[in-house]
Amino acid sequence: MQAELLEELVRPAHTKMLLVVLDGLGGLPLPEKNGQTELEAAHTPHMDALARTAELGLAHPVLPGVTPGSSAGHLALFGYDPTKHVIGRGVLEALGIDFPLESGDVAVRGNFATARFTPQGPIIIDRRAGRPSTEHCRALCQRLQEAIPQIDGVPVFIRPVKEHRFVLVFRDPALDPQVADTDPQAVEVPPLPPRALAPSAARTAELAARFLEQLSEVLHAEPSTNFALLRGFSRRPELRPFNQRFQLRSAAIALYPMYRGLASLVGMDVLKVPEETLKGQIDELRSAWENYDFFFFHVKATDSRGEDGDIAGKIQAIENFDQHLPLLLELRPDVLVITGDHSTPALYRGHSWHPVPYLLASRWARYHQDTTGFGEQACSRGALGHFPLVYNLNLMLAHAQRLAKFSA
Amino acid sequence: MQAELLEELVRPAHTKMLLVVLDGLGGLPLPEKNGQTELEAAHTPHMDALARTAELGLAHPVLPGVTPGSSAGHLALFGYDPTKHVIGRGVLEALGIDFPLESGDVAVRGNFATARFTPQGPIIIDRRAGRPSTEHCRALCQRLQEAIPQIDGVPVFIRPVKEHRFVLVFRDPALDPQVADTDPQAVEVPPLPPRALAPSAARTAELAARFLEQLSEVLHAEPSTNFALLRGFSRRPELRPFNQRFQLRSAAIALYPMYRGLASLVGMDVLKVPEETLKGQIDELRSAWENYDFFFFHVKATDSRGEDGDIAGKIQAIENFDQHLPLLLELRPDVLVITGDHSTPALYRGHSWHPVPYLLASRWARYHQDTTGFGEQACSRGALGHFPLVYNLNLMLAHAQRLAKFSA
Repeated sequence: MQAELLEELVRPAHTKMLLVVLDGLGGLPLPEKNGQTELEAAHTPHMDALARTAELGLAHPVLPGVTPGSSAGHLALFGYDPTKHVIGRGVLEALGIDFPLESGDVAVRGNFATARFTPQGPIIIDRRAGRPSTEHCRALCQRLQEAIPQIDGVPVFIRPVKEHRFVLVFRDPALDPQVADTDPQAVEVPPLPPRALAPSAARTAELAARFLEQLSEVLHAEPSTNFALLRGFSRRPELRPFNQRFQLRSAAIALYPMYRGLASLVGMDVLKVPEETLKGQIDELRSAWENYDFFFFHVKATDSRGEDGDIAGKIQAIENFDQHLPLLLELRPDVLVITGDHSTPALYRGHSWHPVPYLLASRWARYHQDTTGFGEQACSRGALGHFPLVYNLNLMLAHAQRLAKFSA
Repeated sequence: MQAELLEELVRPAHTKMLLVVLDGLGGLPLPEKNGQTELEAAHTPHMDALARTAELGLAHPVLPGVTPGSSAGHLALFGYDPTKHVIGRGVLEALGIDFPLESGDVAVRGNFATARFTPQGPIIIDRRAGRPSTEHCRALCQRLQEAIPQIDGVPVFIRPVKEHRFVLVFRDPALDPQVADTDPQAVEVPPLPPRALAPSAARTAELAARFLEQLSEVLHAEPSTNFALLRGFSRRPELRPFNQRFQLRSAAIALYPMYRGLASLVGMDVLKVPEETLKGQIDELRSAWENYDFFFFHVKATDSRGEDGDIAGKIQAIENFDQHLPLLLELRPDVLVITGDHSTPALYRGHSWHPVPYLLASRWARYHQDTTGFGEQACSRGALGHFPLVYNLNLMLAHAQRLAKFSA
């Protein structure tokens, strides 16, 4: 309902919008920082100045208490209800290695594993095969690809990701991806069979079973990487294109393939960034500025340091962005949002369910006179209150004067 | 769902509720007022005193980012989901001139326009016919009404509104209002034909086409007002009556016809106000106090000054209401709400999407000890937080002890 209403109200304008996603931005109070979060403890004079005339709030990517994966957080940021549009793990993994996924592909995440073979079948000894090197993973995938170019006429693609992880793709629009994971989530037990969750997925399950048989033959002499577990059988979701929904020309500036992939899923132009640094991203933004209405600008370092539990590193990543902020402000976006796709508190060392700090700067911001800076506490008392992150597009389009009045 | 639940819980009581709508109340921080909004900058000792023991909040009339029309804001205030009950522009325009709209009427908003007639048909030169005087509009409507009392047996009503605007009504319950606007939204192009948007609307479209033909004949000698554009073909929505839904005797005290019309649409008694001033409205309220449970009290000046971008004028309108507030408090309403139907920031010079300041005073208010006054910032940190304005009736009825406990 909300999505349809929004699309009916959209009208064109000449305003420019910039969505900066500091991945995993939200944090938790840190005892060693007198109860300040990473964002609050960071020295961020430019974001603080901006916050003084911006609208602040805390946004829930999915629902209170629900920890989002990266795809759910980004779908919400792009105005797609993440409880209605789910991106499978296989698809996300394929996007993460820039695999050119077609709409008829079934993508699967594979983990190399170690099995002991018994007359009753394989028994899983190590679900990650002792974390092989990424080089070894590459070599294995190449051998497998050469040995298994197709199964029963269906083209098969096997691509390395990192360490024990790889992507498996079956290319056939007639396949149904509803197949259960084969990972038993335990060792010293047999793997689960690739079981069809619907009658129409029987063939996909059979292809997966035959793939595992052939893989075992190819890798039987490997000391540890002699088996694989398959998870997240999925197909690209059919999402109504972002540009069509919101009458925009949009572009993504992101260094990590997964985020470029998410942007391309919704139909954004994904720009090449020759110099893979924050400065390089900004240079690309500046040179593309005139050609688009909406930019998605993704910064990964905040999330990575949070996952590592690296408090100083996350603070530094935030400060590094802040130092570059004046270059973004020089472009004079009509609407600038700085937020996260989820929280990754360094204290928690992983994605968390805490709502994300959200800052919206625009000529029409209803700012609070007593705001001193950008942080979780200021956001929780901000003019926007607590709100679902999927309203990000409502707010950006409204401040960009791209929504007509509703009803008479 | 929420509407049905609420109605199930309603029970009678002897409490009195007063809903004061300061139209377009919400504002934006004003640089010339040190970042205070119109409401914050206004000297409002009585509302400020009330706020100290009231519940404050910010309410969204439709959805975050969505700018409501006046009808949507009022429907929400009256407890009707504005995304489910839409009032057409033709109906709203008819309500605005106190036209006695019947349930079988199709109402249309007309704009006098200037056309150049070519062998291929009319070309629109001016979509507002150079904004004729309201007197001229009245004279034209009278001539048209005399010339076109009916078309093909369907009674036709043509009534002046203001300047280039008029209302056209076809009275026939068999007509379907689903006809597209004829306004091309551009000049030097032909008008759009009145096109049926459903097969059942073919006859309405034909009546509209014949009306335009006859209008052209009657007005062919007019130098500028020789044509018309038709918009917002609509019928009165069928709304379950307010009094029945909430077991109330309700009355509206409003000076502007459109707001009286909205109140009558939901079945409120619309009281006559002989002296058309705020004082006159209060006198009427006082004399009707014993006869009703619920009063809708509408003040227009705040919105009008906001639309004009008249900061001082909007502040003065707010201060003027504040000076009269003690007369309302003397009546000792059990529940008093002071809010808006939408924001009309003087800075924005029009309706905006910003949530509206909301104050609820009652014996059962969970007030904040540190509240100093009524304003957007205090409301954003108020006890009610941010909430959909359609919950206004929930809150008023609850504080009036007119809702039974839900479930055992």
